[in-house]
Amino acid sequence: MITLITDFGLRGPYVGEMKVAMLKVNPDAKIVDVTHSVTRHSIIEGSFVMEQVVKYSPEGTVHVGVIDPGVGTERRAIVVEGEQYLVVPDNGLATLPLKHIKPKKAYEIIPQEIKKFTGWRISSTFHGRDLFGPAAALIDKGVSPEEFGREIPLDSLVKLNLESRKVNDVWILKVIYVDDFGNVILNLEGYERPKFVELLDFNLKLPYLDTYGLVGEGEMLALPGSHDYLEIAVNRGSAAERLGVKVGDELRVRLL
Amino acid sequence: MITLITDFGLRGPYVGEMKVAMLKVNPDAKIVDVTHSVTRHSIIEGSFVMEQVVKYSPEGTVHVGVIDPGVGTERRAIVVEGEQYLVVPDNGLATLPLKHIKPKKAYEIIPQEIKKFTGWRISSTFHGRDLFGPAAALIDKGVSPEEFGREIPLDSLVKLNLESRKVNDVWILKVIYVDDFGNVILNLEGYERPKFVELLDFNLKLPYLDTYGLVGEGEMLALPGSHDYLEIAVNRGSAAERLGVKVGDELRVRLL
Amino acid sequence: MITLITDFGLRGPYVGEMKVAMLKVNPDAKIVDVTHSVTRHSIIEGSFVMEQVVKYSPEGTVHVGVIDPGVGTERRAIVVEGEQYLVVPDNGLATLPLKHIKPKKAYEIIPQEIKKFTGWRISSTFHGRDLFGPAAALIDKGVSPEEFGREIPLDSLVKLNLESRKVNDVWILKVIYVDDFGNVILNLEGYERPKFVELLDFNLKLPYLDTYGLVGEGEMLALPGSHDYLEIAVNRGSAAERLGVKVGDELRVRLL
Repeated sequence: MITLITDFGLRGPYVGEMKVAMLKVNPDAKIVDVTHSVTRHSIIEGSFVMEQVVKYSPEGTVHVGVIDPGVGTERRAIVVEGEQYLVVPDNGLATLPLKHIKPKKAYEIIPQEIKKFTGWRISSTFHGRDLFGPAAALIDKGVSPEEFGREIPLDSLVKLNLESRKVNDVWILKVIYVDDFGNVILNLEGYERPKFVELLDFNLKLPYLDTYGLVGEGEMLALPGSHDYLEIAVNRGSAAERLGVKVGDELRVRLL
Repeated sequence: MITLITDFGLRGPYVGEMKVAMLKVNPDAKIVDVTHSVTRHSIIEGSFVMEQVVKYSPEGTVHVGVIDPGVGTERRAIVVEGEQYLVVPDNGLATLPLKHIKPKKAYEIIPQEIKKFTGWRISSTFHGRDLFGPAAALIDKGVSPEEFGREIPLDSLVKLNLESRKVNDVWILKVIYVDDFGNVILNLEGYERPKFVELLDFNLKLPYLDTYGLVGEGEMLALPGSHDYLEIAVNRGSAAERLGVKVGDELRVRLL
Repeated sequence: MITLITDFGLRGPYVGEMKVAMLKVNPDAKIVDVTHSVTRHSIIEGSFVMEQVVKYSPEGTVHVGVIDPGVGTERRAIVVEGEQYLVVPDNGLATLPLKHIKPKKAYEIIPQEIKKFTGWRISSTFHGRDLFGPAAALIDKGVSPEEFGREIPLDSLVKLNLESRKVNDVWILKVIYVDDFGNVILNLEGYERPKFVELLDFNLKLPYLDTYGLVGEGEMLALPGSHDYLEIAVNRGSAAERLGVKVGDELRVRLL
């Protein structure tokens, strides 16, 4: 089973080309479209989406992520092998999913080796179809990444700085996702359930509750969310708009 | 075979999480994406979409619908068993598809029983991934709803009022769908083919024809549509915009 | 394996109805969604998208395209049989994919014959579900198009005029696609790599390079693209907006 996460958009031939190319290499592949509408070039957003999908995927699943502003430059194309596989550009996209797959080995994909399997040239602008997709299809088929990659140290992978920090009793958090409903997801997980969440930058003290419907329409709350990350929301409204925040922004937060 | 209808949108991890969770429970499931872009919280629209898909699905198909503004509150999560299966929140979403599946039994899904199969906790905000998806995957795998649900009376299911009414020669109809082309679908089916359709609220008398191209560009007509419901359209234009109507609105109509 | 390209949009029941109808006829069909968001009624765009997917598909793949402004009128519904299959309205949609499938035979689909397999009536407005989809599912299942179509001459198929022309040293080219990133694709392929591309209508001389990142942000360039067609782009910007061009427009171009 292979999952796909890209920023290709849904209108053009790109997604289709990538999928048929994978099925040409591996006709039995079971491909699951996750999303092709990650905000263009947003590596943090793609990393968050891939992490959530990894958390609920069976062992052996191959996750392909193509959020790749550096395509055609010298960033590496990599495979990370663990309980599940990540096939991604080495630009930080692997940061969050890595926490869940117990990584054992990493490989840099060698374009010439992939070409031996596919038979078509590697374009400089569409590595989803020419490199990442075929690599994933091969792994799903049982081909070891050793056959088309060179091993690289696990600690050489590019990582985004997405760790939460605490200064005294104040958490310095990053917005790692804003969903279609305008809910704001912050990079804090595994915290002890508070009664209130204070957003210091906005002088707001929000109740921490189980679900949106427990405050009135248009009211703001904090909640565990379905991602286990701290989430800020407005019942039937957009917290991101209300606060004017976007992915990557930093917020100072106190749990009370 | 399992079909999916949600209002999750296509950008985030939600659709992917739901699908991989289902494949974790049932690796052989054949999942068909119908749409994840139902207007947010629009139960009528979701009910119409599910009905159309049910009409052309093979026996035994499991349809999952997650249009669920009441997630986390006390609305029931249900399975309806007939020639096909519906796995939905008990909020009226089943109303229109129910007409086509010859329902035999209904069950309320018991979260704790689902958890025995999945192993992960039931979040209060994402029942698509934690309840409805896994329940559908289990049914598709051959597990009886009895094993994770308690039987409830078929006539206890919540139903929307989507019956057409007739007062003398005037039909009181509801807009049950507006498609991407602006065609307006009304809840009247099985009627005798008229020559004209009069929209009393707009003082309009429209020809009733077989297809859009039989009137000039920009002209309005009525037609049987591909859904067997009465449809109002503008050739290469939007009838919904022209009339200023939306899903749920009531129209008075005479067939001439 | 069956690929789908339509302009149905992703919100309504249409895509789902078409897919479940295909699976009712052929439960083992492997259906690959390419796109359902081709610009409404844009036959050139649909033709381009289908061509790209054909280029990377395995032999025997069945490609269904439903960009069909003439549905319900007398345009033919056709199957083209070659190394791969095209199942499309005979309105020019086949023009570009035809170049790659080594066509051997063409058939007009006979609605009454399809109905024998599906059992449901052929609507006048939804041939994706009632004609094209089932025809494709039958071919994928091994049924010969002879069983539901009448053979027609290959040279009777409607073709769009999408050939590039050269007048002295000036190419008269057409915009055949504008992707989501605003890249402009022109109908010139197999040309010798130039150093510069001159857009005569805009008095612009652009460097011809391998990838977007080789010019500064906001700068314009020409490149081979991943489609083997000449492409005009702006690094991290939209060339289509900058030039004010759209699909179907003609441009005069000199390769230097």
